[in-house]
Amino acid sequence: MQFLSDNAAAVHPRVWAALRAADAADAPYDGDALSRRLDEAFGALFGREVAVLWAATGTAANCLALATMVPPHGGVVCHREAHVEMDEGGAPGFFLHGAKLLLAEGKGAKLTLESVAAVLDAIRDDVHQVQPHALTLTQPSEYGRVYRAKELATLAALARGRGLGLHMDGARFANAAAFLGQGAAAACGDMDALSFGCVKNGGMSAEAIVFFDPALANVARYRRKRAGHLQSKGRFLAAQLLAMLDDDLWLANARAANAAAALLAEGAAGRLLHPVEANEVFVALDAGERAVLRSQGFGFYDWGPDAARFVAGWDTREEHARALAGALAAL
Amino acid sequence: MQFLSDNAAAVHPRVWAALRAADAADAPYDGDALSRRLDEAFGALFGREVAVLWAATGTAANCLALATMVPPHGGVVCHREAHVEMDEGGAPGFFLHGAKLLLAEGKGAKLTLESVAAVLDAIRDDVHQVQPHALTLTQPSEYGRVYRAKELATLAALARGRGLGLHMDGARFANAAAFLGQGAAAACGDMDALSFGCVKNGGMSAEAIVFFDPALANVARYRRKRAGHLQSKGRFLAAQLLAMLDDDLWLANARAANAAAALLAEGAAGRLLHPVEANEVFVALDAGERAVLRSQGFGFYDWGPDAARFVAGWDTREEHARALAGALAAL
Amino acid sequence: MQFLSDNAAAVHPRVWAALRAADAADAPYDGDALSRRLDEAFGALFGREVAVLWAATGTAANCLALATMVPPHGGVVCHREAHVEMDEGGAPGFFLHGAKLLLAEGKGAKLTLESVAAVLDAIRDDVHQVQPHALTLTQPSEYGRVYRAKELATLAALARGRGLGLHMDGARFANAAAFLGQGAAAACGDMDALSFGCVKNGGMSAEAIVFFDPALANVARYRRKRAGHLQSKGRFLAAQLLAMLDDDLWLANARAANAAAALLAEGAAGRLLHPVEANEVFVALDAGERAVLRSQGFGFYDWGPDAARFVAGWDTREEHARALAGALAAL
Amino acid sequence: MQFLSDNAAAVHPRVWAALRAADAADAPYDGDALSRRLDEAFGALFGREVAVLWAATGTAANCLALATMVPPHGGVVCHREAHVEMDEGGAPGFFLHGAKLLLAEGKGAKLTLESVAAVLDAIRDDVHQVQPHALTLTQPSEYGRVYRAKELATLAALARGRGLGLHMDGARFANAAAFLGQGAAAACGDMDALSFGCVKNGGMSAEAIVFFDPALANVARYRRKRAGHLQSKGRFLAAQLLAMLDDDLWLANARAANAAAALLAEGAAGRLLHPVEANEVFVALDAGERAVLRSQGFGFYDWGPDAARFVAGWDTREEHARALAGALAAL
Repeated sequence: MQFLSDNAAAVHPRVWAALRAADAADAPYDGDALSRRLDEAFGALFGREVAVLWAATGTAANCLALATMVPPHGGVVCHREAHVEMDEGGAPGFFLHGAKLLLAEGKGAKLTLESVAAVLDAIRDDVHQVQPHALTLTQPSEYGRVYRAKELATLAALARGRGLGLHMDGARFANAAAFLGQGAAAACGDMDALSFGCVKNGGMSAEAIVFFDPALANVARYRRKRAGHLQSKGRFLAAQLLAMLDDDLWLANARAANAAAALLAEGAAGRLLHPVEANEVFVALDAGERAVLRSQGFGFYDWGPDAARFVAGWDTREEHARALAGALAAL
Repeated sequence: MQFLSDNAAAVHPRVWAALRAADAADAPYDGDALSRRLDEAFGALFGREVAVLWAATGTAANCLALATMVPPHGGVVCHREAHVEMDEGGAPGFFLHGAKLLLAEGKGAKLTLESVAAVLDAIRDDVHQVQPHALTLTQPSEYGRVYRAKELATLAALARGRGLGLHMDGARFANAAAFLGQGAAAACGDMDALSFGCVKNGGMSAEAIVFFDPALANVARYRRKRAGHLQSKGRFLAAQLLAMLDDDLWLANARAANAAAALLAEGAAGRLLHPVEANEVFVALDAGERAVLRSQGFGFYDWGPDAARFVAGWDTREEHARALAGALAAL
Repeated sequence: MQFLSDNAAAVHPRVWAALRAADAADAPYDGDALSRRLDEAFGALFGREVAVLWAATGTAANCLALATMVPPHGGVVCHREAHVEMDEGGAPGFFLHGAKLLLAEGKGAKLTLESVAAVLDAIRDDVHQVQPHALTLTQPSEYGRVYRAKELATLAALARGRGLGLHMDGARFANAAAFLGQGAAAACGDMDALSFGCVKNGGMSAEAIVFFDPALANVARYRRKRAGHLQSKGRFLAAQLLAMLDDDLWLANARAANAAAALLAEGAAGRLLHPVEANEVFVALDAGERAVLRSQGFGFYDWGPDAARFVAGWDTREEHARALAGALAAL
Repeated sequence: MQFLSDNAAAVHPRVWAALRAADAADAPYDGDALSRRLDEAFGALFGREVAVLWAATGTAANCLALATMVPPHGGVVCHREAHVEMDEGGAPGFFLHGAKLLLAEGKGAKLTLESVAAVLDAIRDDVHQVQPHALTLTQPSEYGRVYRAKELATLAALARGRGLGLHMDGARFANAAAFLGQGAAAACGDMDALSFGCVKNGGMSAEAIVFFDPALANVARYRRKRAGHLQSKGRFLAAQLLAMLDDDLWLANARAANAAAALLAEGAAGRLLHPVEANEVFVALDAGERAVLRSQGFGFYDWGPDAARFVAGWDTREEHARALAGALAAL
């Protein structure tokens, strides 16, 4: 019974079906019929014109998006525990040619008006300090916390007022949207680009970069090729993304994962390090307790010396979630 | 009847089967059982110890390999018409942080002892000129010409004597090996790294970077993550590569493509711009002749104003190849 | 009697005087009174508004200027024998983050409408090829050839029509302006930025980057600091540049160098590889002839196996030039 | 009476004399007689073999040194308030191609065994996190604190044990050496490279990069040219450095600055934010007190809302220092 991560889960049957249906040879790269449908499909989802590129990983999606907003001598404000800072092996430094991450505080890995303003206000406008050019936030955050529409609006207004570009890392965007229940546009707010996750939500190897400013997408196309991310059989990436949007599979999968996480949260009541809003559950557990759970067949990651992280996926079975919830409650 | 490129061809049924078999969740990234089998499988193929990383594209494979051999202030000798120079959208400049491609001549896009030495000898050993650190060659070349074992040995000896790293772009390596008929090791010669192509030969989205020097592979692992190329469900890339090696599918597919190209070459006798050794056929054809062929239902790319390129794939049907051969002969 | 290069010549007495006069402490970096006078002084010279930054070397000046016009994924058209391509140790690759130099032909290292158009027209507008973003030319060229106003206008019109930025490497700009005799603006034409040389013309350690588009200068300021080129006692660089402009010292020095070169050209009549328009003289001389000259006390560089290069400086003594001219004529 | 910074101070008369003496043309770049004497002169100072390069700025010196130790995918441990992190406009990101600064804590901007170990121990050895490759520390620190020989030995041992390169930012190295009084080698400890400051200590435009590992210097030579920092009249930079070493002018100047700072420290007793060990004095002063001092003719920088920084230079006049000390005491 694995709760290690959603990032290695199985591929959803409807994604498999879409992959098989895409097998016939078509134009290479992103000239195929499926890739050409992405703008329209995501445009319908967000209710506005968008330009969409596929990429194989969330790291590539995040960095290709940010590279359209930030010159090499610029900086990007992000949370101190953001994925771009902590877990991408220095990819922002690579894709942005040495641009600097400017680290802000915030509970639950969420940025706030105050924390971002504190970073911005501390930067003198002179050439000795790296100037901010963009803001990136993760929806839901690295601790599974979801930005509400009003929070997004406040941050976007601050960023716009300072002339910053806006990017959302939505590796688990579907889980946030499922939690908020107001649709994709509301869960995203006023961004310039969104990394729309698919791999953790039943996909195989495709993420979408949704550009709300088509001019940025044109730059990203050159950057994507230059980064070796323009696959020649791109139709297989497009197929995954379209399958996800079709009949709102992305939301259905996310709801299932969130529901399983909610079961765990119940079982871990009183031990939760963060409120559970999406599909990740951070629980205070000492080494002995973790050993007990593992002896019962549960797989998960330690989160520092005194806690553990449990992640539910689209394919987490309800009985497994209930079993883990019970085991947590019984500790 | 398409002869545009092998890079958008269908995926081979045995690759599909391997993908489906890999669906069960496993460790993420390259910690899964399939990725862990790559070193052994390719080691058996080449008859020596190797360290193998998967990557989604040939551009990424080439550039990740070269980045292990060349510092940012260095240079890479390649042919003037090499893929890294002509068709990768500046990816070497990106992955190698501005290192310079040093362009050599050679008929049929093949490097020679003389052409490489001419480049090397013209470079003064001072800080005003970019110094060479590696040599990369394409097997078969961009015009479908195959380096013989002796040619490879001569170039390798030159490079080793000058202290250069050695890389082979084998996007269509299988076609060269099928032509030579002496196995993988002979078709590769003494390289430090090989980009072993799979996508053009019946794969979906995986190429192998075969490092004959394991120390280079360790650097490449960090670079791959940093370039956003470490996919979380890496098992699906490993599965493709293993399927290709299994029972020598890679050679069988390449032989089929080469055989189809040979048929075309017969039909185009007298018009061939380059001897046909692999699966690409370059034919002198004026605009009128190209129009005739297209009106007969053949798809292909123009190659400048007076020629065309035809590419056969693993799935090119013999009757299509015969039809095109007949049409070419009838012009 | 040295004719090796003007780049190591002595510093002009009026530059020394300006340096000494600048000794009193002032605001650091470019906040001092002298640095603040540069825009006005160069604005008067060019008869239009400009924004001027100092830099320590021509390589830095060229690359900082180009970096304001070319994104990392872009390209710069230059002559195949341009200094940026041949002699800057890969600096464009560094400052421009891997952007590509796109090499054009042209006699005497001068670009022409046809040679530049040939490069541009060969580039397909797709992501597989690096797209041009700027054109740089050297005035006078690396072989001492001077672009006439009409040639500059033709090239500028071509570049503007294709949406390219325009940069002039004027390491010896003064020599070209002295030759043309029409003032600075005419010798420059319609550029976005000019590297205005001072070190080879009697300066110590300062070149000017003249931006005709002030928005580019603002970007360059950040880039200059980031490249470690913002000296804290910048007043000493500004002092050199102001001394050069004062009472047209730059032109007087260049005229002296050109006059000395003209004497050499007379002596080498019939052996000149390029017409002598500035202060460099390229002469066909076999090894024996070169040995004779050296035995007579003349210092110069070989230029390949069958030629030599002689450079006159602002401080070349007329009797030395006459002596060399006589020796050349006597060969 | 200026106490703003030592970085814009006047040039010492003996440096002027050396500059004038270097005027005669010599070989360009670093082939001149003076540049060739640097290794020996600094070797004598440090009592061991060294390879020395000049550079125009401390930012360039720091980053060129670090670039020899850290690959683009690596990281550099430094203090959270180090100059490389706070004041170099992102230069480390540029010169190191996106390598990451890994920030450690420590009182008075000094690193400690514990603070560095805390950073290192928090980094998992996997490709998702940037791995440390070097440690850089500032001697004296950004708050004028001096590392003792034992502290240097402890940090060096830690770094060596982890396989890290070692670099010292010695923009004011002379002031630390003057304070310690044990010579250059003791003030430096076991480093791979030292940025030896000269500009703040009476120079005009030259810093030395002292490599204790000559192999690193060879890489740095290519990097220096590539960064546009190889000046053609390099003899003028070498002349400054040699003048500084001659008869220990560097120490005499630093002692003078330290003595002036000590006077200020006496006057500010009870208000000092950091013990005064070199030539910088950080004093708790409210806005009103700062206004009083400024009305008395003293120039200095605010240091946050409740403090000020005073810097003494080699040319600070004793009566000015006494006047400020008196004014501080009288507040």
